Amino acid sequence: MSITPTEREQRVLDRIDQVRRRPARVREERVTLAHGSGGKATKNLIEAVFLASLGNPLLDRLEDGAVFPVDAGRLALTTDSFVVSPLFFPGGNIGDLAVNGTVNDLAVSGARPLHLTAGFILEEGFPIADLTGIVASMAAAARAAGVRIVAGDTKVVQRGKADGCYINTAGIGVVEHDVALGVDTARPGDAVLVSGPIGAHGVTIMLARGELDIDADLVSDTAPVHELVAGLLAAVPGVRALRDATRGGVATILNEIAEAANVAVLVDEAAVPVQAPVRGACELLGIDPLYVACEGRIVVVVDGAAADEALAVLRTHPLGAQAAVIGRIAADPPGLVLLNTAFGGTRIVDLLVGDPLPRIC
Amino acid sequence: MSITPTEREQRVLDRIDQVRRRPARVREERVTLAHGSGGKATKNLIEAVFLASLGNPLLDRLEDGAVFPVDAGRLALTTDSFVVSPLFFPGGNIGDLAVNGTVNDLAVSGARPLHLTAGFILEEGFPIADLTGIVASMAAAARAAGVRIVAGDTKVVQRGKADGCYINTAGIGVVEHDVALGVDTARPGDAVLVSGPIGAHGVTIMLARGELDIDADLVSDTAPVHELVAGLLAAVPGVRALRDATRGGVATILNEIAEAANVAVLVDEAAVPVQAPVRGACELLGIDPLYVACEGRIVVVVDGAAADEALAVLRTHPLGAQAAVIGRIAADPPGLVLLNTAFGGTRIVDLLVGDPLPRIC
Repeated sequence: MSITPTEREQRVLDRIDQVRRRPARVREERVTLAHGSGGKATKNLIEAVFLASLGNPLLDRLEDGAVFPVDAGRLALTTDSFVVSPLFFPGGNIGDLAVNGTVNDLAVSGARPLHLTAGFILEEGFPIADLTGIVASMAAAARAAGVRIVAGDTKVVQRGKADGCYINTAGIGVVEHDVALGVDTARPGDAVLVSGPIGAHGVTIMLARGELDIDADLVSDTAPVHELVAGLLAAVPGVRALRDATRGGVATILNEIAEAANVAVLVDEAAVPVQAPVRGACELLGIDPLYVACEGRIVVVVDGAAADEALAVLRTHPLGAQAAVIGRIAADPPGLVLLNTAFGGTRIVDLLVGDPLPRIC
Repeated sequence: MSITPTEREQRVLDRIDQVRRRPARVREERVTLAHGSGGKATKNLIEAVFLASLGNPLLDRLEDGAVFPVDAGRLALTTDSFVVSPLFFPGGNIGDLAVNGTVNDLAVSGARPLHLTAGFILEEGFPIADLTGIVASMAAAARAAGVRIVAGDTKVVQRGKADGCYINTAGIGVVEHDVALGVDTARPGDAVLVSGPIGAHGVTIMLARGELDIDADLVSDTAPVHELVAGLLAAVPGVRALRDATRGGVATILNEIAEAANVAVLVDEAAVPVQAPVRGACELLGIDPLYVACEGRIVVVVDGAAADEALAVLRTHPLGAQAAVIGRIAADPPGLVLLNTAFGGTRIVDLLVGDPLPRIC
């Protein structure tokens, strides 16, 4: 097989080459099915939108996987999909939420976040400008957290088969501290802390939907907690478990602790930090702020003897300035979370039944 | 704060404890928004559907991230989302497709697949029985590929905001061979191989949609290629690049090679293996099989001197029994894929414009 173009053919080939070397740009104003085809439109979208914001030596290669060296040790691997509605809300959007969410899952696993992947499912008709804004937020959030997005994927589904944009992020991190964190390690005498006021993300999303006629001055608490966690683990030896209180809120985490360790979690309602607008909105809606999602708050279980130290260390970081000890671990009744209410009563805080706040993250 | 239950309260607590210790089961026949709440329904779904099939020591812990040891070396990280329609098709379903897809991306990165993550976006109303079947297929595919699913996430969106079930898988693998694979390393004189007949997956999906009135005896080629690749890399030193030819088909891969390495890819149409029903369906639809997705076929670029050896090694594996040398790399015209057609002509095989086969994977 031998192919030697004629002079005329060569002119055509040169012209094609010239067109191909133009900088990629997306001419369309909205996502089309062709953007998910793997062909020319996909290539333009990847180059003009994704690489333009997220580009780095690993991602730029556009191979099927990113290859990088690691030292011997322990790694953490995690994943989260994001389907928040609306996509843009006070304090953030689905893009930084998706980056912070996986950064935080790595952080509370005791790991320094290293590399992330991003998988997009886009609905035909989604505005390219919105996608560009989301990707720019992801890039900023990744920079802030010291991670790179090293592999990605984009799929497009027909109009009516998604809701604009869904994002999955997965990530790996390096476990640098010699800790074995786990909710099953909680034991009687441990203290339970939260790193700041709870429920701001969930209430912000709800208000952004406009279903309530409230104009509260509230923004999402979405933030990367990796530095907060690294500071805590470096300074306080007795940390047993860390969780970021997202979907299901602090109450869900407390139940996971109670069940996994077969202990009681006793919580003092008055000690739980809640911003006034969050409390007000929750009262109007008849939901307990303990169940409302945060996106930058952690629950810490720590040896009771180290509780004051842990609190002090958390408070040195801006994200932990309003950290508080909210309760303690006891032996009985095993498997349950009990709340001493502000009115002097006691009630069981169970796992959520139903979903008062769908698509909060 | 001190809480000591009365005898009556203790009986209530005991009863609650008893109910909680029941084996998890999903009572609902269909996915509800509550299954995505993070609360009780989510817990039941995770335990009764996901852990029941996919369970392993890392996943069972249900922490925010899976932590595991690694040796010093190189890792590969990758991600893919799957939105295939229909969800079930001859030869597989979205579940094994999602596992094989990420296993294959790791394999063609030169890595031995190690751990996967799985993120589900479910539409309210999706049958639990279908989800259970999909998860069982994922478990079987993971076993076949020697990987474990070590972290997961489930989101539920309202009816009409998805199409039953979307799955993202991400994965890490260990690069054990001392190779630096990349489509940018192709050079004149290299040979281009495919590991088997192309296009069966894409055509199978299309026929499964019932849009064509054809009753072909065809199944998807979805399969894990990690062993095929490992055998090739172990036996043949001159392998330059590997890609699995999914969305956009072999033609897209060849264009990526031509552009990344700034070389010409010269393909002999008659040498490209295509099953008769695939060829027939493609002719009816007016599409070129070179553009149709496979899900278990790889494109190999190898030093020309090692082409025969590579072919022989591929053919020793069942998935490579019909492997073929389909073309070669030349210096000119750089950046283009040229096809010697079966009729003796030559044409440019460009990147796909538009998307003749949306949601093929």
